[in-house]
Amino acid sequence: MKIAIFGAGSVGGTLGSSWANKGHEIFFGVPNPNSDKTQALLNKIGSNAQAGTLAEASSFSDVIVLATPWTATESAIKAAGDLRGKTIIDCTNPLKPDFSELSIGFTTSGGEQVAQWAVGANVVKTLNQTGSENMGAPVYGTYPSVMFVCGDDETAKATALTLVKELGFDAVDGGGLKIARLLEPLGMLWIGLVYRQGLGRNIAFALMRRN
Amino acid sequence: MKIAIFGAGSVGGTLGSSWANKGHEIFFGVPNPNSDKTQALLNKIGSNAQAGTLAEASSFSDVIVLATPWTATESAIKAAGDLRGKTIIDCTNPLKPDFSELSIGFTTSGGEQVAQWAVGANVVKTLNQTGSENMGAPVYGTYPSVMFVCGDDETAKATALTLVKELGFDAVDGGGLKIARLLEPLGMLWIGLVYRQGLGRNIAFALMRRN
Repeated sequence: MKIAIFGAGSVGGTLGSSWANKGHEIFFGVPNPNSDKTQALLNKIGSNAQAGTLAEASSFSDVIVLATPWTATESAIKAAGDLRGKTIIDCTNPLKPDFSELSIGFTTSGGEQVAQWAVGANVVKTLNQTGSENMGAPVYGTYPSVMFVCGDDETAKATALTLVKELGFDAVDGGGLKIARLLEPLGMLWIGLVYRQGLGRNIAFALMRRN
Repeated sequence: MKIAIFGAGSVGGTLGSSWANKGHEIFFGVPNPNSDKTQALLNKIGSNAQAGTLAEASSFSDVIVLATPWTATESAIKAAGDLRGKTIIDCTNPLKPDFSELSIGFTTSGGEQVAQWAVGANVVKTLNQTGSENMGAPVYGTYPSVMFVCGDDETAKATALTLVKELGFDAVDGGGLKIARLLEPLGMLWIGLVYRQGLGRNIAFALMRRN
């Protein structure tokens, strides 16, 4: 496949290297194709990669991969010219410039709403990310399902982490209650995979770690 | 621990059974404590469980677990009385009544924004849910990281699924482009675990399956 990658940073560079190794032709679209960094990347990948402007990359390709910082994404798309009929693989996350949270589509959560209703209580969000079968039997073979826990009160969160661990989950502290904005979409993702995508209820998320 | 569980459905029942087995005292708060369903649950669990009104359950407990349908959550909290200083574990998801999507905190996504900018292109969202190291080496031991893929054009999505599989990921079709509203929070969750929670970049999500 002829693949344009917009951006040649850590994500774009890694993807380009891997796909070039599989025999695809890679064209990095970057603001300055002759930069030392881009040239070093091309040398590392070898014969299946080149670099040029965003428009050149676009016209070369069957597929465009967006590996730009979010704040550069709109201008990169505009600079690429006519994109009708193109396949675009969007690898970006719409982060705020300080990477603290998503900048769009992200306004509140059920957990925060509960905290407003339950005046003075210490609300912890968890056990919303999987189905009841998995709550009763969270270990798949020898691998525990992950269950993220978030809340603003450390004592309440410690209690919840203990209770979640007792169920057999890999209980992971996700941060403050605002992280419910991430954990509720994760619950919704599970529900959608189970029902809309037809994977059935015997699926569960895990968090893998390595050194 | 004395644990009140608001709701005695599949989630509340499973949690109550598991925690009762660990020696905790369970008090289900439900609209009708004498219903056949609740009494059957109590008989199944045995001596560590009882049921009563929401206010009785609340006053009994150190910890309150919300296992209510979202639409019943506000009224359950109001019926529970004074909750100041209580620890509340919120297991709900703020689903729309038809379970199709989250009802709050969920307005748009970067993927949908990109589709608006890239007029006529077929946008697929993926490769936003982990770091570049994992994109270069997505397999932990023998277990591949999961990478969800969503988009509205089936041909473009099939292309993206192929490319993601070639990287070594467990590539999973998550649905239409609107699912970017779930996949971008997943990317943000990874970033927050890595940086804010200090877990480091060698962590990755997996999707486990069993029969």
